[in-house]
Amino acid sequence: MAELPVYRAKIEPDWIDYNGHLRDAYYGLAASYAVDDLMDYLGLDAAYRESTHCTLYSLEMHIHFLHEVKESDDLKIITSILDFDRKRIHLACTFACSRLDEPAATADMMLLHVRQGEKPATAPFPEQVTAKLAALKLSPAARDAFGPLSRKIELQRR
Amino acid sequence: MAELPVYRAKIEPDWIDYNGHLRDAYYGLAASYAVDDLMDYLGLDAAYRESTHCTLYSLEMHIHFLHEVKESDDLKIITSILDFDRKRIHLACTFACSRLDEPAATADMMLLHVRQGEKPATAPFPEQVTAKLAALKLSPAARDAFGPLSRKIELQRR
Repeated sequence: MAELPVYRAKIEPDWIDYNGHLRDAYYGLAASYAVDDLMDYLGLDAAYRESTHCTLYSLEMHIHFLHEVKESDDLKIITSILDFDRKRIHLACTFACSRLDEPAATADMMLLHVRQGEKPATAPFPEQVTAKLAALKLSPAARDAFGPLSRKIELQRR
Repeated sequence: MAELPVYRAKIEPDWIDYNGHLRDAYYGLAASYAVDDLMDYLGLDAAYRESTHCTLYSLEMHIHFLHEVKESDDLKIITSILDFDRKRIHLACTFACSRLDEPAATADMMLLHVRQGEKPATAPFPEQVTAKLAALKLSPAARDAFGPLSRKIELQRR
C-alpha cells in the first residue's frame, strides 16, 4: 500500500467555539482540505479539472468526534482509500493530534467523479487515476481495523 | 409537535469552492449554527452555559449532499428532534433552498449534554429542557418519513 500525503490543518482562532474547543464543523473543513490534497495527489488537480471539466462531488460524510481539540493543538489528517469503483471513492480520514494517543476524530466519505456542464453527469475515472487508487486501497485487514466508521446514528436503550 | 426556529444561513463567498458550489464542509457549519439556535431555544443558551458549566458536545454527524447550492442561493436549515434520552439528543437537519423542490441536503447528529471542568462529564438535562424536547420530538410517522438519514457508507456492487 502506497503512502498518502498527510494534511496539516491550521486551527484558526474562529474555529474555536463557546465550548473552548474546535467547533464540530471545522473537523469537516479540515477533511475537505485534506481531500483537495488527495485530489492533487491522484491527478484530479486544477489542471485536470480545467481541461476535462471533471471533478469530485461529495455524496455523504460521517464524522465521529472522539476527543476535544484545542486552539493550541496541532491537527493532521491522514486519508485512506477504503474502496473505489469506476467513478466513486470511499475514503476515510483519521484526525491526529500529537497531545492524544488516540485519534481526535475519524470520518468517512463517499465521493463521485462528475463531468460538470449544463447538467453535471457521472464520469468514469481515467485509467491512471484508477491505477493509483488500486495501489492506495487499504487491505481488507487494514480496512477492518479502521474505525469507527459510518453507521446508523440512534439511541440504544437498555 | 411544536415548531422549531428556522436558521437562515448567509452563504459567504469563500464557502464556494473550485467546483462553483457550496463546499461540503459548509453544510456542516450551517448545521452547527442551526444547533446553536436550537440550544438557545431549548434554554441551553450562553447564560445557562455560564451558570451551570453545562453544554452540548457533538458525538457524530452524517450528511447527505443531495443537490448543489450556489452562491446566489438562499439556504435555510430546519432542525427536528428525532429522539432524546436523559442526556443525549438525536436531531436531524433539512437544508432547504427556494430554487429546489427537494432538500439540498439532510443531516443527522447525536449531541451529548456535558458538564465542563477539569474532566468533562456527562450530565442529565434539567427538567425544563426534557419537557421541551418531549414537546418537540417527531412522531414515529414523521420520523420514518424523514430521510435520508445516517447509515453505513459503502459501495454496493451488483
